[in-house]
Amino acid sequence: MNERHDILSVLKAVEAGNLSAQDALLKLKLAPFEDLGYAKVDYHRAVRQGVPEVIYGQSKTREQIAGILEAMQKRENTNILITRIDQEVADYLAQRFPIRYEALAKLAVVLPETVAGRGSIVVATGGTSDMGVAEEAAITAETLGNSVTRLYDVGVAGLHRLLSNLEPLMTARVVITVAGMEGALASVVGGLVDCPVIAVPTSIGYGAAFGGMSALLSMLNSCASGVSVVNIDNGFGAGFLASRINQMEGLSE
Amino acid sequence: MNERHDILSVLKAVEAGNLSAQDALLKLKLAPFEDLGYAKVDYHRAVRQGVPEVIYGQSKTREQIAGILEAMQKRENTNILITRIDQEVADYLAQRFPIRYEALAKLAVVLPETVAGRGSIVVATGGTSDMGVAEEAAITAETLGNSVTRLYDVGVAGLHRLLSNLEPLMTARVVITVAGMEGALASVVGGLVDCPVIAVPTSIGYGAAFGGMSALLSMLNSCASGVSVVNIDNGFGAGFLASRINQMEGLSE
Amino acid sequence: MNERHDILSVLKAVEAGNLSAQDALLKLKLAPFEDLGYAKVDYHRAVRQGVPEVIYGQSKTREQIAGILEAMQKRENTNILITRIDQEVADYLAQRFPIRYEALAKLAVVLPETVAGRGSIVVATGGTSDMGVAEEAAITAETLGNSVTRLYDVGVAGLHRLLSNLEPLMTARVVITVAGMEGALASVVGGLVDCPVIAVPTSIGYGAAFGGMSALLSMLNSCASGVSVVNIDNGFGAGFLASRINQMEGLSE
Amino acid sequence: MNERHDILSVLKAVEAGNLSAQDALLKLKLAPFEDLGYAKVDYHRAVRQGVPEVIYGQSKTREQIAGILEAMQKRENTNILITRIDQEVADYLAQRFPIRYEALAKLAVVLPETVAGRGSIVVATGGTSDMGVAEEAAITAETLGNSVTRLYDVGVAGLHRLLSNLEPLMTARVVITVAGMEGALASVVGGLVDCPVIAVPTSIGYGAAFGGMSALLSMLNSCASGVSVVNIDNGFGAGFLASRINQMEGLSE
Amino acid sequence: MNERHDILSVLKAVEAGNLSAQDALLKLKLAPFEDLGYAKVDYHRAVRQGVPEVIYGQSKTREQIAGILEAMQKRENTNILITRIDQEVADYLAQRFPIRYEALAKLAVVLPETVAGRGSIVVATGGTSDMGVAEEAAITAETLGNSVTRLYDVGVAGLHRLLSNLEPLMTARVVITVAGMEGALASVVGGLVDCPVIAVPTSIGYGAAFGGMSALLSMLNSCASGVSVVNIDNGFGAGFLASRINQMEGLSE
Amino acid sequence: MNERHDILSVLKAVEAGNLSAQDALLKLKLAPFEDLGYAKVDYHRAVRQGVPEVIYGQSKTREQIAGILEAMQKRENTNILITRIDQEVADYLAQRFPIRYEALAKLAVVLPETVAGRGSIVVATGGTSDMGVAEEAAITAETLGNSVTRLYDVGVAGLHRLLSNLEPLMTARVVITVAGMEGALASVVGGLVDCPVIAVPTSIGYGAAFGGMSALLSMLNSCASGVSVVNIDNGFGAGFLASRINQMEGLSE
Amino acid sequence: MNERHDILSVLKAVEAGNLSAQDALLKLKLAPFEDLGYAKVDYHRAVRQGVPEVIYGQSKTREQIAGILEAMQKRENTNILITRIDQEVADYLAQRFPIRYEALAKLAVVLPETVAGRGSIVVATGGTSDMGVAEEAAITAETLGNSVTRLYDVGVAGLHRLLSNLEPLMTARVVITVAGMEGALASVVGGLVDCPVIAVPTSIGYGAAFGGMSALLSMLNSCASGVSVVNIDNGFGAGFLASRINQMEGLSE
Amino acid sequence: MNERHDILSVLKAVEAGNLSAQDALLKLKLAPFEDLGYAKVDYHRAVRQGVPEVIYGQSKTREQIAGILEAMQKRENTNILITRIDQEVADYLAQRFPIRYEALAKLAVVLPETVAGRGSIVVATGGTSDMGVAEEAAITAETLGNSVTRLYDVGVAGLHRLLSNLEPLMTARVVITVAGMEGALASVVGGLVDCPVIAVPTSIGYGAAFGGMSALLSMLNSCASGVSVVNIDNGFGAGFLASRINQMEGLSE
Repeated sequence: MNERHDILSVLKAVEAGNLSAQDALLKLKLAPFEDLGYAKVDYHRAVRQGVPEVIYGQSKTREQIAGILEAMQKRENTNILITRIDQEVADYLAQRFPIRYEALAKLAVVLPETVAGRGSIVVATGGTSDMGVAEEAAITAETLGNSVTRLYDVGVAGLHRLLSNLEPLMTARVVITVAGMEGALASVVGGLVDCPVIAVPTSIGYGAAFGGMSALLSMLNSCASGVSVVNIDNGFGAGFLASRINQMEGLSE
Repeated sequence: MNERHDILSVLKAVEAGNLSAQDALLKLKLAPFEDLGYAKVDYHRAVRQGVPEVIYGQSKTREQIAGILEAMQKRENTNILITRIDQEVADYLAQRFPIRYEALAKLAVVLPETVAGRGSIVVATGGTSDMGVAEEAAITAETLGNSVTRLYDVGVAGLHRLLSNLEPLMTARVVITVAGMEGALASVVGGLVDCPVIAVPTSIGYGAAFGGMSALLSMLNSCASGVSVVNIDNGFGAGFLASRINQMEGLSE
Repeated sequence: MNERHDILSVLKAVEAGNLSAQDALLKLKLAPFEDLGYAKVDYHRAVRQGVPEVIYGQSKTREQIAGILEAMQKRENTNILITRIDQEVADYLAQRFPIRYEALAKLAVVLPETVAGRGSIVVATGGTSDMGVAEEAAITAETLGNSVTRLYDVGVAGLHRLLSNLEPLMTARVVITVAGMEGALASVVGGLVDCPVIAVPTSIGYGAAFGGMSALLSMLNSCASGVSVVNIDNGFGAGFLASRINQMEGLSE
Repeated sequence: MNERHDILSVLKAVEAGNLSAQDALLKLKLAPFEDLGYAKVDYHRAVRQGVPEVIYGQSKTREQIAGILEAMQKRENTNILITRIDQEVADYLAQRFPIRYEALAKLAVVLPETVAGRGSIVVATGGTSDMGVAEEAAITAETLGNSVTRLYDVGVAGLHRLLSNLEPLMTARVVITVAGMEGALASVVGGLVDCPVIAVPTSIGYGAAFGGMSALLSMLNSCASGVSVVNIDNGFGAGFLASRINQMEGLSE
Repeated sequence: MNERHDILSVLKAVEAGNLSAQDALLKLKLAPFEDLGYAKVDYHRAVRQGVPEVIYGQSKTREQIAGILEAMQKRENTNILITRIDQEVADYLAQRFPIRYEALAKLAVVLPETVAGRGSIVVATGGTSDMGVAEEAAITAETLGNSVTRLYDVGVAGLHRLLSNLEPLMTARVVITVAGMEGALASVVGGLVDCPVIAVPTSIGYGAAFGGMSALLSMLNSCASGVSVVNIDNGFGAGFLASRINQMEGLSE
Repeated sequence: MNERHDILSVLKAVEAGNLSAQDALLKLKLAPFEDLGYAKVDYHRAVRQGVPEVIYGQSKTREQIAGILEAMQKRENTNILITRIDQEVADYLAQRFPIRYEALAKLAVVLPETVAGRGSIVVATGGTSDMGVAEEAAITAETLGNSVTRLYDVGVAGLHRLLSNLEPLMTARVVITVAGMEGALASVVGGLVDCPVIAVPTSIGYGAAFGGMSALLSMLNSCASGVSVVNIDNGFGAGFLASRINQMEGLSE
Repeated sequence: MNERHDILSVLKAVEAGNLSAQDALLKLKLAPFEDLGYAKVDYHRAVRQGVPEVIYGQSKTREQIAGILEAMQKRENTNILITRIDQEVADYLAQRFPIRYEALAKLAVVLPETVAGRGSIVVATGGTSDMGVAEEAAITAETLGNSVTRLYDVGVAGLHRLLSNLEPLMTARVVITVAGMEGALASVVGGLVDCPVIAVPTSIGYGAAFGGMSALLSMLNSCASGVSVVNIDNGFGAGFLASRINQMEGLSE
Repeated sequence: MNERHDILSVLKAVEAGNLSAQDALLKLKLAPFEDLGYAKVDYHRAVRQGVPEVIYGQSKTREQIAGILEAMQKRENTNILITRIDQEVADYLAQRFPIRYEALAKLAVVLPETVAGRGSIVVATGGTSDMGVAEEAAITAETLGNSVTRLYDVGVAGLHRLLSNLEPLMTARVVITVAGMEGALASVVGGLVDCPVIAVPTSIGYGAAFGGMSALLSMLNSCASGVSVVNIDNGFGAGFLASRINQMEGLSE
């Protein structure tokens, strides 16, 4: 934090008659942020992220997406994720780029390259209808280099389905629970495991499900410790965060 | 259950010639609101409902409650329930009536008389904080002549607590699940048992619990069949309905 | 109710020496999700639930439904319910399975077989627009072996319509009230009868009906005792629960 | 609408050199509203209203209220209503003004003078807890010179209570229905009578009553025609509007 | 209220041995409502209403509507209102019935007959987009025999538009204010006139208008006395209620 | 801004004796709604507002819009804004009027004429999806004669993007921040600049964004001083208000 | 406004050789949070904001406030605003600092010094109950050097009150409208004036006012252009923003 | 999963005549869960958790808490956390147990023992008012053996405060952001760091903050990846989860 010195140098320039008081005022007004300017910060961010590019496809035209991909291709990226696109957009892109489209997850991997999965992330869903969101999470995590186990349709109304899968749950490093309706899966899983649990409410349901509100509130109020929540249907966010946690380095003792 | 029998016995006394029609009419008029000019009406209510008197105490002064009790006493009722009163009101009433006050349930039984418990109702809670509402349900059911088993603090975040109590749950005729926060208990229990489950959301919790809204929505969206829901904190309503179901006569084949 | 009996008959066959334990285990494995590796689990579910199979059709493709039906057919089920499918899906299924499609209820019964209706369930609606949800409830109950009486369009704004139907209401073992808009039917019926009342709010209405929210809140706040509520438009849930209550065995005195 | 002439006269003043263009612009900017100025409008309003003064007491200090009363007294008003004040404020005012305080309605009439009640307004409540709001409505209407019949505790869960009071209901010119919880009274009454029905939701209830929201939505969605709604707990507003309707002159044929 | 005698006669029949106690119990259970049975009540309702038939078309098929019309035609009704139908349904009906379709109001009058308009109802809207709902109100009122004045697009953001129409407003017997967005029109009009004001919030608007919620709350909180509110977009309800009020007979002094 | 000057010039012509008062009155009557009988009124509106005509296109047919434009054309307006119309409507209008259609902003400028941009308004967006609303604001402001700088996709999750644009932000006279999802841009910008900040929440987002509710609440709760908020997606309102502020005359010292 | 000048005068002293760069750096460090290690940062904030110190008192103890004041006093500030404190805290502070406490606004000015009011800000309220929030706005603006005109209790239900005050409204540079309940004042004023309007919803009201929600939505949906909204009860924010706008320098042509 | 063998052994017992079919049915009904019974599961949970005991104090009496502590003491625990208790309860407990009470966090550590802090968790708050919740998180994490850095009052409206603390943020293994009002801190921090961010909305704020709802929605909609959310004011939950993540072992390559 060398900004104090910057201010001093401005003041010294005034003292030396090299800078007018008015110009100094302007300089001081912009000072503390300027040295954090775009390039440097961005560079740091790029360094830190170490993450494949992700394009949020939902509000973009297929032409816009193709344009972005073209720009990326020049930088020799691989495993570019495009989330929330439908088959039609995927078909359009497939004419120009090597892509792998996952219809259930509505997600494409461009320039797909096999990555060895590390660690252990479990993605569990309450019902079969939650599988679309779950696949968005699972494929995101896999593309980011994580080993993923899927436990689908293990909702709490048939507890035995969950209990017969205790082994993968209890050896996971991170669990993503995906559920709509009453969203109780997060609490039940949260009480069974001792790793971080990421809860994804889904908009599956009708009536008093209120577009995912019921599952969202349920998960936020989970009586189990170690559970946190992402936005309704945000499979990508859960997969991304799970990857971050799964790939953490150990504490140097 | 004995009011219906009372009316029947009045009618039988007429049938047997032991009571004149005119006297019978007078007898039938002995209904709680008679002094308000509603005798006939109330009589019909007693016939239909067949339920011991219940006084909803929350919005009444202690003097008003005492007045109502006095009127009832003349008709030799027993086991009159007064819900939602605090210790102070109970103390006031105890000076003039034989009452049993249940502090946790904030409920008094006036002219208490032991009733043999029939059938089997289980009242289960997610946490210890839900016990007040649960006791309102349990004591209501007991006073109405039902046998009640309490399974408290068996919330889903510690599934083993619930699973180690499978026997009473699976042999129950009705289960009342009382839970705040994420209210997941209803779904889990609903998936385990094959009897009707009455879910009572409670206002226990904070933040996004929104005064019971989270548990309420969760229970309404239960993915388990056989679950229905009453108002937030409505222990009395659950106990009353559970009694109705528990005491149903069998189908004549 | 006959699956429990099936298991019992398997056990009795073992007891009688007509079936080896090994063969019995195989027989017990004949459960719907067996091919998904959940045989044992499902078997337990059948034991507990004792219910004909139900397929929630809303979020499934017609091919998925057909696949599930095919698996079920091998076990010689009858009266399989498929809820929330439209005519087009029904037509597709009808080409390959014997089905009876109920257009109003958007519900199909596969391998339909007449079941003698027992007991007495009344399904009452506030308006004609609530009939779709009501039929989902009624046909569910009938398929589960209950006798159902329909009282449609008896909303509280024309009280005489309700009062002229007191006899079926007062002799019912369970009443299902289906109403949108202000949902007052539940309270009025709840005050008239002495059996359990299951209230189903519907999404019928506009403006401040807020997709069923108004009816839902109204029913939860019912001032009548003995009323409980299921999710908005959840006709199946009401019919299923009503069946459970209607078919309860009497208390052994 | 003589404004066009006003504008012309402004323009003529400019033409005549009696007004500068700049001043004319200002004059034209204010013109159309000025002739509607305070006095005239206010006078008309006072003439039209023919209504005793009303002071909304809720957010005023007792000193402020006394100050307003003193100013009014000089104009020889009688029957001044002060709504939403408690006993303590009433006692303070009683030391200086002749007042009649209605504790249940939390309302005072200052300089009370008996007014002959005309026409027929019925005030009906769902429960006894709604009586405070109902009294605010009833006394407001009485003070404004209307004849009021009270039907309290005639909620829909005990329909007989309402039905045994059909006569006053059916001969009323206006009915005010006051109810909390599920607010169904408005619909049932609206279906029985053929006069305007004013529905007042109350904040009575707990849990999913949400401070009157449940009753408010219920009343807005009333399936009965002829029902309109005022704000939660707004007894005064209902009484005032009922008076306006009750005292309407007949159509001159 | 001759029910007490009915009960006595039942009791006397028992006394006389003409009725068993069991049968008497059943009779007593149904008694108080039976004498209010369908016919009488319905007759009274029909007598009272004196209202042309109204068919709420929104949730009905064109065949259902035609069926109802056919039944009505036999009773020689005229001026039958069908609300909320679109052009296509109207065209279908027009092939078989003499109808007048009002496209803006989405409303048809069947067997239209000119009715002399009586009294004076003003229908005012905030914007031009509110005109559909306003026309539903206006044509309903006209069909019910009222004289209607339309003041459209007089929203409060251009106060002069409203103020230049003071005359019809101030001579109206009832004013209906129809407005979406901030719904302020009701308060402004309510402060100007001394007749009942019926406020109709509309779903016009976007963003924080929340489908009419903003206008609805605004109108319920109106600081002007004499304003009551109907459901969002409920033009028919407002027109019907306005007609009731407009056509009230004067108080016999 | 030139309508006020127009009126003044008319008045000055009268003052100079070049125009009679009568002819001036006629001239002043040349207001857009004159043919609807609202000339005088509209004239006052023009005086007060001093703004080019704006047509809110969302709820109008293309024929209605064309009709309004025709009436306007006679008065030789330029730069008429038509907001919220799609390409198809624009194409229809383009056949009859010289228009410039801005597809992203869904906005047309009719009789477009270049206006010199004055002052400095910055329009900043959180993401690229917010650009439609932002363009509505920017083009509105430009059409009203303001100089606009666009800073798009400078959301707070990539702070460097914002910080590398400090210079235009810090020299702006007004900043419009357009953001959906969490809407944090308003607070961050509000803490950086010392000019008024107008926050526009957008409906961009999904799940718990609740159609812009999340961004709206976030902006209303901004911890930065100097921030105010307009309706969700209300780009026009923000551009209009920004123009008013940007073009304020300085205080006469 | 004098902090920016202070910094400039420090810089000019350096320029003039009257102050060394090192001493200037020390002087610039005299910022309120200096003792928290934030000197540099705060200095920049002062440069940007150019605003007298404001202490948000709501969540601070009287000792904390006194501590902050002590630190400030050393820098010879005047007109320090402390918002949201009650009489008791004010009395405590008055023992140690020269303060002027405004009870209605719950706001204190420390080291009060008369500032010449410039420009013209109108603060208008719908009712007398809104005056507390209005005074917070008005005194904030006055303390920041603005001339303020108060128009209290000019709510739209008595339009004449507003219309009789057109002159101050129409000559204002900024108008702040403060209103609870239906919040219609903002729209009506917004349609009358041609300057920026800042709308402050208040939590005044009951029932469906929902703590200011009704007024907030109403103001956001205002059909008048030029209106923007701040948080419920945020008088300070409105006064601060109004000051910024009122004191804008004119565009250099 | 050896349950199939269990079932087989039951069947073999039937085959051998050692078990009746009826008893077998009961045995099969309970089978799959029994072997997961309380002891084993609980033991596993205890083993896994490795977590000091935590007592949620909010809804417990001081006597209840003392009782629980006494029971725990026998098991020689240390560093028992008691959350959400006030000074009075702490004083009571301090008479009987060695405790360290943290007034700001309203949290006590019983049998406190210094634990070496490992790794690096940053707790950042938007304002000083958020410090209570932040301390609950920080002390929880410290008690669980984590090294915690506090960055308080670094809200986004004064971005420099946050930017001058980039170093601790960028070297953290987990960041907890605690903020009320608009909750934007989570997004800004989420965009700066590359470790998991846990967002805690607080109930700090007023008006449209709606008890934390605004911050909660804002955080759920964060446009930054890697952010997840816990319940409003849930400092303990955030601290607990942060500890789990911080102390994760590295992936064995």
